[in-house]
Amino acid sequence: MTFKPLVLQANADRRLRAGHLWIYSNEVDNQRSPLKAFEPGEQVQVLNARGKSLGLAYVNPNTLICARLISRDDHPLDRSLLVHRIKVAASLREAQFDQPCYRLVFGDSDGLPGLVIDRFFDIFVVQISTAGMERVQDQVVDALNKVFKPAAIVLRNDSKMRSIEGLETYVEVVQGEVPELVPLVENGVQLLAPVLTGQKTGWFYDHRENRARMQTMVKGKRVLDLFSYVGGWGAQALAAGAQEVFCLDASAGALEVAAENARINDAESRFRALQGDAFDLCKAMVAEKERFDVVIVDPPAFIQKRKDVKNGERAYGRINNFAMRLLAKDGMLVSASCSMHLQRERLVDMLRANSRELDRNAQIFAQGYQGADHPIHPAIPETEYLKAYFLRILPAS
Amino acid sequence: MTFKPLVLQANADRRLRAGHLWIYSNEVDNQRSPLKAFEPGEQVQVLNARGKSLGLAYVNPNTLICARLISRDDHPLDRSLLVHRIKVAASLREAQFDQPCYRLVFGDSDGLPGLVIDRFFDIFVVQISTAGMERVQDQVVDALNKVFKPAAIVLRNDSKMRSIEGLETYVEVVQGEVPELVPLVENGVQLLAPVLTGQKTGWFYDHRENRARMQTMVKGKRVLDLFSYVGGWGAQALAAGAQEVFCLDASAGALEVAAENARINDAESRFRALQGDAFDLCKAMVAEKERFDVVIVDPPAFIQKRKDVKNGERAYGRINNFAMRLLAKDGMLVSASCSMHLQRERLVDMLRANSRELDRNAQIFAQGYQGADHPIHPAIPETEYLKAYFLRILPAS
Repeated sequence: MTFKPLVLQANADRRLRAGHLWIYSNEVDNQRSPLKAFEPGEQVQVLNARGKSLGLAYVNPNTLICARLISRDDHPLDRSLLVHRIKVAASLREAQFDQPCYRLVFGDSDGLPGLVIDRFFDIFVVQISTAGMERVQDQVVDALNKVFKPAAIVLRNDSKMRSIEGLETYVEVVQGEVPELVPLVENGVQLLAPVLTGQKTGWFYDHRENRARMQTMVKGKRVLDLFSYVGGWGAQALAAGAQEVFCLDASAGALEVAAENARINDAESRFRALQGDAFDLCKAMVAEKERFDVVIVDPPAFIQKRKDVKNGERAYGRINNFAMRLLAKDGMLVSASCSMHLQRERLVDMLRANSRELDRNAQIFAQGYQGADHPIHPAIPETEYLKAYFLRILPAS
Repeated sequence: MTFKPLVLQANADRRLRAGHLWIYSNEVDNQRSPLKAFEPGEQVQVLNARGKSLGLAYVNPNTLICARLISRDDHPLDRSLLVHRIKVAASLREAQFDQPCYRLVFGDSDGLPGLVIDRFFDIFVVQISTAGMERVQDQVVDALNKVFKPAAIVLRNDSKMRSIEGLETYVEVVQGEVPELVPLVENGVQLLAPVLTGQKTGWFYDHRENRARMQTMVKGKRVLDLFSYVGGWGAQALAAGAQEVFCLDASAGALEVAAENARINDAESRFRALQGDAFDLCKAMVAEKERFDVVIVDPPAFIQKRKDVKNGERAYGRINNFAMRLLAKDGMLVSASCSMHLQRERLVDMLRANSRELDRNAQIFAQGYQGADHPIHPAIPETEYLKAYFLRILPAS
């Protein structure tokens, strides 16, 4: 099988040779291989300026990242490659987790750009975000059937990125039946995720290890879970013996699921829901001198794009300031960010500044990152995004 | 009690107000408070250029860091402050660990610059590295007795930093009796540390969590522990069911303790010692096509000072290259560095470059840092030094 060539400009192969998988549109030699001549999703052979092959990629002439490398030899993106890559990805997860509940495929890091698959026992939730991966959607489903024989497969093809790629957004159950709330186990705790209607794939497995650490800190404590969504943190805090957990979220629907997650852990009586804007409600609680032993700050990405850094950092700073004000003496703060564009040093510095402003001493006693089912590709810094800091906020002494 | 003033130059109080504890000699107003007029270790009141007090510090006129802040109010460094700070430090450790084996005091991060205390049940190993802390050495011992009633206290006052401070180096058991090998428990594993003669305080508690993760990866595996010292990693790998563990170290004495640590875990038959230079022995093993399922790279600090960065990075690069060559297909690499001056991005980039050079795909599935008994002070970047990466090194596909 031969593919049309995509020829790069001189030296534009450096990032690829270093291990990265992305080609930017300004790196293509448009005279020798006009980008506009390719169809979105078409597979191509990537050549450097001297005509040497760098492997196969799929193209989208309409996006800034105009191609993503699929293989460094000549294996095209097809069912057989998908089966192979999914098996390699599965072996990491199977070695790490004792329950089949995890992110099975994490895009570029698993050699499958544009593809995310989350597994909830035998229900698989697939997210395709590029035209190239969309073209092999049927093969993705075939590959999953070949490797796992899933009870159900959902396409959660409704991410924002899809419009940039010229793809429609939709959610479709392509195989089996999917209940409104799908069971999963994380850190030994039974939970439910709204995989058809919730955020992203319905669940954020990436914080698994950070939540496991949080569980060691909350026994008998009064816990506030900001931006709780369906209670990923809150329900696990309850399962770990928290005295009382307040889940705060803007979405009444998410809080209903959070309540259900508390209920299935026999902790309904220790669960409280606070519906509304986190900033407003925190401000009110500060005014009322509410205090918590542990506050968890796990906001949605306040920084989506590089241009949002300044405003986003201000938002992280403000919410962490509220969180510290709401802490009891010797309280513990869990401060997370899923914004790839927020540098960890910046988050640490905000925590520092806030603790100084309140004349309190902060100690970072642990750091967390995305879990093992969200591996980082060492050549693709963009694959690393999640951070979590665990702090004691002490009275100045 | 009043102290002589140490007056800072204009704006030289910024770092302190931001939370840092150090004053550099070029930040002092030598006209209003000549540094040379202070004795090493003397306590002073720190004033900004406008005469406002920033708190109390102890001074050393002979070092680049000429003063370290002790309190932001007017509490001097004495027995009562030591008791208070040690209690605050202990409360973090007691909440985190179920055995009294940990770093009890981690210098600046616990508000006690120049002081490190490691605890091995009721034996306490104290390390003093500044003239200011040396002055209150007796009060440190008193404070430990007040809080813990230790069976024994050792002063491991033999760190390199002491000569810069003009202090003698010595090791002294100031209370009780200390056996050659002192028992400890880490991650549920019984171990022995040579606290009188070993490196630093005899044990490196900082890798506790990273070793715990390593334990989940080694069952039935052939493991190579480079720069093993007394087998902190190796013995815990054996306890976790590794099929065979090779501890490699330059020190025959350290390997004898490593063997003993294997023996007390009933794993003598699965333990191998390799004595010699890590680079030489790795080169030989690569030539002999030796292969391991897991290789642990935890070298001594190849970068001690900023000027060593270039040579040090080369050494990290080389040893990780050897480690990757020694990995079996789908092997796992644990790559650590305790060099504060090695940026984590640089280490990741070396791992990337090495995997590319060998035409293999690396996936970082976990990151590790210093454990909770080595907290980070958010205003003092120098308190963060340890990193560990956990990688799968896959065949290119």
